[in-house]
Amino acid sequence: MSRPRQTFRKDTINPSILEVEYAVRGEIPTKAAEYERRLETGEKLPFGSIVWTNIGNPQQQPMLGQEPITFWRQVASLTEYPQLLDLPAHVRDATFPTDTQERARQLLDAFGSVGAYTASKGVPLVRQHVAEFLAARDGFDEDLENIYLTAGASAGISLLFQVLFRAKRDGILIPIPQYPLYSASVSLLDLVPMHYHLNAEQHWDPSISNIKTQIDEARKNGIEPRAIIMINPGNPTGNCMTREQIGNVIRLAYEESLAIFADEVYQENIYQNRRPFVSFRQVLLDLKNSSDATERHISETVELASFHSISKGMVGECGRRGGFFVLNNFDREVEGQINKIASIALCPPVQGQIGVDLMVRPPKPGDPSYELWNSQMQSIFQTLNKRSKRIAESLTKLPGIEADPAMGAMYVFPRVHLPKSVAEEAQRNGKKVDEFYCRKLLDETGICVVPGSGFGYEPEVLDDGSTYSYFRTTVLAKETQAFIDRFTAFHVAWMKKHKD
Amino acid sequence: MSRPRQTFRKDTINPSILEVEYAVRGEIPTKAAEYERRLETGEKLPFGSIVWTNIGNPQQQPMLGQEPITFWRQVASLTEYPQLLDLPAHVRDATFPTDTQERARQLLDAFGSVGAYTASKGVPLVRQHVAEFLAARDGFDEDLENIYLTAGASAGISLLFQVLFRAKRDGILIPIPQYPLYSASVSLLDLVPMHYHLNAEQHWDPSISNIKTQIDEARKNGIEPRAIIMINPGNPTGNCMTREQIGNVIRLAYEESLAIFADEVYQENIYQNRRPFVSFRQVLLDLKNSSDATERHISETVELASFHSISKGMVGECGRRGGFFVLNNFDREVEGQINKIASIALCPPVQGQIGVDLMVRPPKPGDPSYELWNSQMQSIFQTLNKRSKRIAESLTKLPGIEADPAMGAMYVFPRVHLPKSVAEEAQRNGKKVDEFYCRKLLDETGICVVPGSGFGYEPEVLDDGSTYSYFRTTVLAKETQAFIDRFTAFHVAWMKKHKD
Repeated sequence: MSRPRQTFRKDTINPSILEVEYAVRGEIPTKAAEYERRLETGEKLPFGSIVWTNIGNPQQQPMLGQEPITFWRQVASLTEYPQLLDLPAHVRDATFPTDTQERARQLLDAFGSVGAYTASKGVPLVRQHVAEFLAARDGFDEDLENIYLTAGASAGISLLFQVLFRAKRDGILIPIPQYPLYSASVSLLDLVPMHYHLNAEQHWDPSISNIKTQIDEARKNGIEPRAIIMINPGNPTGNCMTREQIGNVIRLAYEESLAIFADEVYQENIYQNRRPFVSFRQVLLDLKNSSDATERHISETVELASFHSISKGMVGECGRRGGFFVLNNFDREVEGQINKIASIALCPPVQGQIGVDLMVRPPKPGDPSYELWNSQMQSIFQTLNKRSKRIAESLTKLPGIEADPAMGAMYVFPRVHLPKSVAEEAQRNGKKVDEFYCRKLLDETGICVVPGSGFGYEPEVLDDGSTYSYFRTTVLAKETQAFIDRFTAFHVAWMKKHKD
Repeated sequence: MSRPRQTFRKDTINPSILEVEYAVRGEIPTKAAEYERRLETGEKLPFGSIVWTNIGNPQQQPMLGQEPITFWRQVASLTEYPQLLDLPAHVRDATFPTDTQERARQLLDAFGSVGAYTASKGVPLVRQHVAEFLAARDGFDEDLENIYLTAGASAGISLLFQVLFRAKRDGILIPIPQYPLYSASVSLLDLVPMHYHLNAEQHWDPSISNIKTQIDEARKNGIEPRAIIMINPGNPTGNCMTREQIGNVIRLAYEESLAIFADEVYQENIYQNRRPFVSFRQVLLDLKNSSDATERHISETVELASFHSISKGMVGECGRRGGFFVLNNFDREVEGQINKIASIALCPPVQGQIGVDLMVRPPKPGDPSYELWNSQMQSIFQTLNKRSKRIAESLTKLPGIEADPAMGAMYVFPRVHLPKSVAEEAQRNGKKVDEFYCRKLLDETGICVVPGSGFGYEPEVLDDGSTYSYFRTTVLAKETQAFIDRFTAFHVAWMKKHKD
């Protein structure tokens, strides 16, 4: 008796899996983690630490180390161990402002215990608070049954992709460059990616005509375009969309029977005034008030799923895994199916749900926690804002690099003009030129960034064989000067060495 | 210009979704939730409260309300708000035993902040502790790279199903009756379910010959059997497997090139001595020591994924979403694919990961927290044990009901002999007889149980048209006597009314 073969090999598992790429946690970060381990064992490398700028993880220690918002953690600790509410009053009130105690009691009333499963869509009280937040933000009420709490925005996107789309048939419009969750989800479910191109020359704005071209092309190939992904503020581009641009996307979605997935997780991260954050939901619902019957019809029919998260903004509470999505104009039966599939995962993490409550109901002026909360939020906001501008300015001074400060989100996406010899050397090493450059950057400086091709944006080859390569860096590194110094030393030496 | 149709309708979404059934949170619990809302608004119903016995959610308030383990919550609150470690020493040490402070410091060192993403597989320190737990439990060391922390066992199962299996082609052996996560995951991914039957007459033991029959049948139909799901201790059956039974399943898996998924989330919930918990991992690795070359080969080749969770056991910390799986004999490249797909979900909730650490490294005798921890764990254990026996005994006294106390897990799965007239009435109402019975139970008493057919176990029709119907109840209701009284009153009246 001999066993014919191992059950699972690369060629006998789900073939869609092999197609999935996820560069944000791909080869370069994996190598960086290896370097970090080697540094910890005392090995000497050309650098003393890894600068993790590959992922928006503000509280990561020690190089980023953004401090948590005190209000959040006071409420969270009280919900974890409610006996703290029974400390002697003078100790308790000196440790926990009274509004954190009240909030904890209210949440405990709603959850029972942070150790209990909740409803699969999340605790109704928190969904009610999300509804109130949306009403205040957009000026239109929301039914809490349209709101789903999730383990971060990604979990919501995975859930909806799984429920809504049909393998090998449905086309999903994805921006290029894009946060790779979308292409990964498309590959994973064997859907058809339809890439539309953001305009590098115009702050990475979307182009309606390019989107239309992709739709026509796909239809010719028998693909059914079903949804368009919009990331606003943009990741990795830092773009912010205008109200007019959003309106145009909504009208297009109507004409083409597309649903809209609006990834709005960076809605609080806005660093300029020309393009304030405007939600897709607001623009969509506002069409109700139009004098034009078609516009009113658009408002009542275009399906919109909007995503938000506690991992971004100023709080950056990634590790709790919390977020929500809200559905507009979805069919009731389809919502029933979404709820059913959500129930298989039982429920989102309770501390993530509590985080959503704290995000949508921050302290108000006059509340005991307000001043500290506000000064912490302002301080983080100013830090991100300044760093984005400083990184963009410093990089732009370097030969061949152009970088705009982020309009929004938490990334700078510089363009690096690399000579032909680099492209050739990359090719000899079996790598894309941007991957090659970013890997050398890591090897020599410990700075971990993600090449543009990791976001689906391939290096542009110019007539003379040189290339425009891109990479994304977060603006989270605490030691911004060290980041800039290390980067500058590397890049200047590199360009000298590779002068064609 | 008119929009041709709504993008998403029941007939235009992923068709596999429609096939998914998930009774544990299905029609009856949904109705129960509606009743609960109506009770809250002051409406008069035949009962004053819902008794939630449909789901293993021990800390659910108010009817279950198992108290959290103090040690867990002290450590969790310190990790949420580390400033508590800086309270004046006399206050701090009176509130937090010194070992909880040490543990919190150690975890904070490893995590940085509970607000930061960790590695997608989970924090290495916790995985190392899981490896040590497995070594101590089974007597065989483990490589921490084979260990993945997850958002509960379900998240691990979903991940592995998605990576490993091929739609429309791969057959998965699922026990009947079974926890419906498995059939739901199979439907969701369009895999082929292969049902093997647990033996109702023999404590719901698995039958190797029945499994073989299913395999032969599937092969005849062009299906490739790839994996067998084993739930031990059993859900919903309460069965515990013997070492010999486990060995037989492993040998069968070897002969048939099946991987084994061992759902062992109830490994601490054992209420008898004849069949102590034995892990699949231990039996598999123990074959290394066999004098038989084939057995040694089995030990080195049969792929085993074992799942554990913090949601069950005595702690019942469902809301944190924590668990792990360990892979034995998996191909390295396949593991790489699993890790890649895990990274799309970013990381498991940090408080869930901390929970895994607390589960696998409880206080030791002599530690400041040991005595309280131990007395709480013992007390919960005794409560579950007694309730299981009491519920089984009380129900068995009722006409037509037979119920065994659980050998393990946290459920009783009674058989109800229902007269023919009930089957007829159910049919007139368009319901399965067990669903009909359980729904009436809810409507008249507020007790929420799950019918056997929700676990894939259909009522057995006897020659005289009467049926054996099953249902699952947890043993978690705090007011066990109230549960028994309400149930007894309902069942006795029901049987009188339905005497054929």
